[in-house]
Amino acid sequence: MTQAKTKIMHYSKAPSLPIGDSAPGSTMRWLIDRKNDGAPLYSLRMVEMRPGGNSLKHAHAYEHENFVLSGKGRVLIEDAWHEVGAGDVVFIPGDVLHTFENTGDELFVMLCAAPL
Amino acid sequence: MTQAKTKIMHYSKAPSLPIGDSAPGSTMRWLIDRKNDGAPLYSLRMVEMRPGGNSLKHAHAYEHENFVLSGKGRVLIEDAWHEVGAGDVVFIPGDVLHTFENTGDELFVMLCAAPL
Repeated sequence: MTQAKTKIMHYSKAPSLPIGDSAPGSTMRWLIDRKNDGAPLYSLRMVEMRPGGNSLKHAHAYEHENFVLSGKGRVLIEDAWHEVGAGDVVFIPGDVLHTFENTGDELFVMLCAAPL
Repeated sequence: MTQAKTKIMHYSKAPSLPIGDSAPGSTMRWLIDRKNDGAPLYSLRMVEMRPGGNSLKHAHAYEHENFVLSGKGRVLIEDAWHEVGAGDVVFIPGDVLHTFENTGDELFVMLCAAPL
């Protein structure tokens, strides 16, 4: 593992990378991570979704800790949709099926922390 | 440990608790934590500082992953101050001396994730 080192950076300096075909309109910025920053447990990412875009629909053993920064959207957790917007916190435990969608007209932006 | 359970909540629903005499003007909201939510590794907190306020000046074995939401401030890391504002990411590895101060005229608000 990279030795942990102090980092101060505006989020916009991290490249906005396409997540893939299963998450159309969505990109991810890795703000703090294990490989480059030596974060020992958790990576902090920013997910940006264009209107109509969505994140991956999946379940995995690790949890997500999310904080919505801007925009309007909804999150599917197992079989129920929930409206979310700026200032909402979403904790998704491991092994829980989930996906986010941008249901608004502007960019939907959230932080997503996970042990990756 | 509490069994992890899904949580969707606006941050304002979490009480804003004084941090203590060593962090004047600063309060903390526990948004996702181990005790109540069963977060297995990391807690997500929101720190709010009034103008002139500061966070604890300390070093500890665990890291911080911070994201500044609003306001203007500065962070001391070891012996150097760095200006920070909305959208800035700050990663403070374990055992690094640090404190934040609000140097602006408005509330300084940041997320602070840590393995607590």
